[in-house]
Amino acid sequence: MMRRLYHIPLSPFARKVRLCLAEKMLEFELIVEKVARRRPEFLAMNPAGKVPVLVESDGLVVAESSAICEYLDEVYAAPGLIGSDPIDRAETRRLVAWFDLKLGREVTANLVFEKVIKRLEGLGPPDTTAIRVGRQNIGRHLEYISYLAERRRWLGGDVFGLADIAAAAHLSCLDYLGDVPWAVHPLAKDWYVRIKSRPSFRPLLLDRLPEMMPAAHYDNLDF
Amino acid sequence: MMRRLYHIPLSPFARKVRLCLAEKMLEFELIVEKVARRRPEFLAMNPAGKVPVLVESDGLVVAESSAICEYLDEVYAAPGLIGSDPIDRAETRRLVAWFDLKLGREVTANLVFEKVIKRLEGLGPPDTTAIRVGRQNIGRHLEYISYLAERRRWLGGDVFGLADIAAAAHLSCLDYLGDVPWAVHPLAKDWYVRIKSRPSFRPLLLDRLPEMMPAAHYDNLDF
Repeated sequence: MMRRLYHIPLSPFARKVRLCLAEKMLEFELIVEKVARRRPEFLAMNPAGKVPVLVESDGLVVAESSAICEYLDEVYAAPGLIGSDPIDRAETRRLVAWFDLKLGREVTANLVFEKVIKRLEGLGPPDTTAIRVGRQNIGRHLEYISYLAERRRWLGGDVFGLADIAAAAHLSCLDYLGDVPWAVHPLAKDWYVRIKSRPSFRPLLLDRLPEMMPAAHYDNLDF
Repeated sequence: MMRRLYHIPLSPFARKVRLCLAEKMLEFELIVEKVARRRPEFLAMNPAGKVPVLVESDGLVVAESSAICEYLDEVYAAPGLIGSDPIDRAETRRLVAWFDLKLGREVTANLVFEKVIKRLEGLGPPDTTAIRVGRQNIGRHLEYISYLAERRRWLGGDVFGLADIAAAAHLSCLDYLGDVPWAVHPLAKDWYVRIKSRPSFRPLLLDRLPEMMPAAHYDNLDF
C-alpha cells in the first residue's frame, strides 16, 4: 500500500508535512479528510480529529504535524531538515513553534479559518473582525521574516530546513487568499521567491479550492 | 554562572522544563519573569516574550518549551525522556502536543490564565464564562489520561517520559487551583499519585503564589 497523508488543501500543518515528504523525495498519496464530519475511522487514527495524519506503507499511523516532521527526519535522515547540532536544532524548533503557534494563531487562524475552512465545512459566515485582526498582524510577522532573511541564508541558519518549511506552509495558504502584502516586505518576498521555485513546492501551487480561485500571482514564480 | 530558567510559577510550560531538568539531575536557578512588562533584555532572549527561557552556564539561550525539552534530551541524554525508537518518540510527541496545545487551550488557558495570570499581571477581572468552559472541558481530558493509564505503564508507553511530564505540568497548575475532580477519575488519580511522589516534582509542590494559597491537598502525596 502506498504511503498516505490525510490533509485539507489549505491546512498549513498538512502543507508543512507535504513539503517535508517532498524534500526527502518520499512518495505519498494525498487524501482530503472532511474533519468536521468526525469519521470514527479517522478519530481512531488521531483522537484530536485534525489533519495531517500520516499512514506509512506498513500501516503505521503518525499524527500531529510536529511529531510527523520529527519522525520523518529521524527515519529518513537525508536531507536533514532540523539542523546538525543541538543549538541549531533548538533554533529551528523555536522558529517552527513561532510560525505554527504564534503566526498560526495571530494570522493564519484568523484568515484561513474564517475565509476558507468555515465555508468548506459549513460553519457559518466569516467573522469580519477576525479577518481585520489577521490582516493587521501579518505585517509584524513579515518584518520578523525579513529580519531573519537579512541575517541568515535561510530562516533557521545556513541550511534550508523546517523553519523555512513551516513559515512557507503558512504564507502559501495566506498567499492563496491574496492576503500577503509582499510589495512592502521585499526581503521576505525574496526569501519566498527562493522557496517557491523548489520542486517540493510545486504541488502546493497546483492546489485549487472548489469555487475559490487563488490570487492571480499565487503560482507565478516571478510574481 | 549557574544555569538559569526564567519562569512564572503556574506556567505549565515552565513546569514542564523544570521537571525535565530535575529528572536529568541538572541544577538550575529559577528567576520569575513578569512577562507583561516586556523587558527589552528578556525580549532579546525570546522575541515571543514568553517563559520558559533557559540560559545555560556558558550563556547559550534556548527559548520555547518544546525546543528546550528536545535540546535537553539531546545534550543530556540520560535518562531519555522522549523514547528510544522513532515510533515511540512520535507517540510521545503526539501526546505532548495534545497536552500542551489541546488541554492547554481547552482547560489550562481558561482556568490558570483567567484566575491567576490576569491577577498577577494586572490584566483585569476573570472571565467567568471562560472559567466555566475550562471546568467543563477538564473531564474529557481526565478520561483520556485514564484511558491511557489503563493500557500503559506510563502515558507514552512503558517508560516514564515527556508525555507524563507535559500532562503533569498542566494538571499540577490546575490542582493548585483545586480545579481537578480527581474523585471521579480514579485511574488518572493513581497515575498522578505516582508522578507526585517523584523527587523531581517536590519543588513544584512548594510553589506558593502571593495571596493565593493552593488547594488543601495540593502538596499531599496521599490525597
